[in-house]
Amino acid sequence: MLADDCPTWAPEETRQARADLSRLIEPGDLLGQLAVAALGADEAVELIRSGREPTALQQHTVGEAAESAGLMPRQRKLSEALERWRTRLPQIGDTQMLNSLRRQGGGLLIPEDAAWPRQLEDLGPAQPLALWFRLAGGDSDPYREVWGRLPGAGRSVALVGSREMTDYGGHVAWEAARELAGHSVTVISGGAYGIDAAAHRGSVAGAQHGHWPGVAVLAGGVDRLYPAGNDRLLRDLLKQGMVLSEMAPGSAPTRHRFLQRNRLIAALAAAVVVVEARWRSGALSTAHHALDIGRPVGVVPGSVFSVSSAGCHRLLRHTPAQVVTDAADILELVAAATPHPGAEGQDCIETVQDHVTNDDSPSVVDGLDEVARRIYDALPVRRVTTPGRLSAIAGLPMPQIYGGLSRLERRKLVRRTQGGWGRSAPSRGSRS
Amino acid sequence: MLADDCPTWAPEETRQARADLSRLIEPGDLLGQLAVAALGADEAVELIRSGREPTALQQHTVGEAAESAGLMPRQRKLSEALERWRTRLPQIGDTQMLNSLRRQGGGLLIPEDAAWPRQLEDLGPAQPLALWFRLAGGDSDPYREVWGRLPGAGRSVALVGSREMTDYGGHVAWEAARELAGHSVTVISGGAYGIDAAAHRGSVAGAQHGHWPGVAVLAGGVDRLYPAGNDRLLRDLLKQGMVLSEMAPGSAPTRHRFLQRNRLIAALAAAVVVVEARWRSGALSTAHHALDIGRPVGVVPGSVFSVSSAGCHRLLRHTPAQVVTDAADILELVAAATPHPGAEGQDCIETVQDHVTNDDSPSVVDGLDEVARRIYDALPVRRVTTPGRLSAIAGLPMPQIYGGLSRLERRKLVRRTQGGWGRSAPSRGSRS
Repeated sequence: MLADDCPTWAPEETRQARADLSRLIEPGDLLGQLAVAALGADEAVELIRSGREPTALQQHTVGEAAESAGLMPRQRKLSEALERWRTRLPQIGDTQMLNSLRRQGGGLLIPEDAAWPRQLEDLGPAQPLALWFRLAGGDSDPYREVWGRLPGAGRSVALVGSREMTDYGGHVAWEAARELAGHSVTVISGGAYGIDAAAHRGSVAGAQHGHWPGVAVLAGGVDRLYPAGNDRLLRDLLKQGMVLSEMAPGSAPTRHRFLQRNRLIAALAAAVVVVEARWRSGALSTAHHALDIGRPVGVVPGSVFSVSSAGCHRLLRHTPAQVVTDAADILELVAAATPHPGAEGQDCIETVQDHVTNDDSPSVVDGLDEVARRIYDALPVRRVTTPGRLSAIAGLPMPQIYGGLSRLERRKLVRRTQGGWGRSAPSRGSRS
Repeated sequence: MLADDCPTWAPEETRQARADLSRLIEPGDLLGQLAVAALGADEAVELIRSGREPTALQQHTVGEAAESAGLMPRQRKLSEALERWRTRLPQIGDTQMLNSLRRQGGGLLIPEDAAWPRQLEDLGPAQPLALWFRLAGGDSDPYREVWGRLPGAGRSVALVGSREMTDYGGHVAWEAARELAGHSVTVISGGAYGIDAAAHRGSVAGAQHGHWPGVAVLAGGVDRLYPAGNDRLLRDLLKQGMVLSEMAPGSAPTRHRFLQRNRLIAALAAAVVVVEARWRSGALSTAHHALDIGRPVGVVPGSVFSVSSAGCHRLLRHTPAQVVTDAADILELVAAATPHPGAEGQDCIETVQDHVTNDDSPSVVDGLDEVARRIYDALPVRRVTTPGRLSAIAGLPMPQIYGGLSRLERRKLVRRTQGGWGRSAPSRGSRS
């Protein structure tokens, strides 16, 4: 298992491949994300660059992953998708870019890194291809530095809201963020004017001791601190926290990318809190993303006469979102969302026990290939787990995990639930 | 069945008996309320006045009703209770009082009247012994007049809140009440300063055409319009609406009576809306009474910095209460609470069908006494109903209904649920 004190980083070729892929494939292009997961980043980028038709095996592998992710037949056409991805080929191949970005205090996190925020796996096939990051430039290596600043799955809160905020909303957001940062909680927001900016300002004020900085997730590239009016604020954030984006440097923040960006904010945080939102506000999409993947959503109530609270009250009336009035309420929300700290360790114990049984007696895994057997052994006996955790436990890269799970699923040895993958209930007589 | 166009009134002796009982037995004295229901008002008041020990039959009847209502043995001691009730004997027996009250535009509603608000039966044994009412004095008979002003079970809303209201709360309460009154909804509140007064003012403003007046439920007697500062407002209310109290004229509003009064507000209304409430506010007790008897509770959100909304947010965080922001939201809440208009008719159809079956074949009711048989026949086949509705369908007074249900329960022919009484599932072979 990978522990905090032994960070490992993926090979530079894979990082370069994903840097290229993040320019070629737009967020929300599920087939692209599945193809990269199924073929691996290196093979995927090679296929796109080659200009060739995919091989029968490639088509089969990607098709299977897409079908198993629930994509409709018309969404699964790899040849059509390749045409789409190849339109941006002239933009890629700058192999010096990652090194120069590193010298400026930035870099690229990829799912093959041990530092990859595993909570993003809750997005399933919508997990981003990569995350570009930017810190304040300094003497130390940004890859070493980013490790300690990434939002932990259990100690982070997204504070989001409308651009057109009131004094009330700004005050609530600033106070809550300051207090949360003081309680060692990472405050995540979108870097926008209004509530986002108030939350970032509060977290900067609360993180004076440098341990629990804030994170801004941008809709465009991390090279342009958008919007321009927040440039100084976002530079302050870079000193102790960071700016993240799934879009490559140079990318413009478009409406589509703002909405896709919201899913990252929801998935990175343990809970999402909407401070102020108009009847139709982007913050509502962040809340709905959070509810979709099982994150608790808190809502700050306000005056029934305030248009800036109308979206908040709408959420409270029509979703399981809960009222929160201060940082204490928000900490309660996060505590309820955080899994029991012993859960991961338990997985390992169960795996070991199971392994002993398998060695001693004829087993359901007889006749499986080595990869599928390792994945099956890594699956907890009663609970479910994510592909990312399986990758860490079985010591196999993600593409092999997806392929192996798919083979195991065909043999009805594993089942997929909303929470992840687990073993099927053993059929009678399958063990002696 | 009793319809709106054929009001019937209980005999004057029974009204006089309940007038006396409402002076002798304090609200919340469950054994008193059960004794009156089990013995009938006339026998109960006679027993108290006589100074005698209860007969063995009386003790048995009351004891059974108390046990079946879930009272603890120490709460069921009739002799002790009689001593308690007899302490106020000097206060009763003014037989001219009801007549003089009637001439001043007041009167007494009792459960034996067809006009009795049946929704109060949802309080179970905590149903009040009687309701004193007061209208603006005029030429017409107050008993004829009160019939059209009583809050209907499905078209009334309680708007409640703190005395220390803000401009915000007052504005929301006034607006909502005015609009609800305009939508033919009776607005019920407690006549107090603050939110109550704002709600009453709004309902007076909205009821300009005289059809959907407001109702104030007081903690003291209806002869004193308390608090004095609301005297003019409450007099305005009397013109088209009314003031109600379970306390006899002359009774002072005590803390205990304020809390008991809150259960009446909750039970009279189809839904309770808390507009503003401090962390510890009497309005919260009204909301909890409502939740206890299955009434929906709406809560107006407000600033998280307002102490006058702290109790509102507390309700939203810890109970199934829902956010409401305006009269439209409140009307939705009422619509969800109002039973399907065909429900009562359905009861009757089922009863008739069932009766035919019973006439043609040997039946579980063979061997039952006439009263129990009539009650059993009146019970719906699949649903549950209230003792009050049974009384109307079976044409039996309430004491006989309680006694009969108790005998049927001993024979396991009926079951009691939170929603009321229904038939037990028939055991195999009980019918040919």
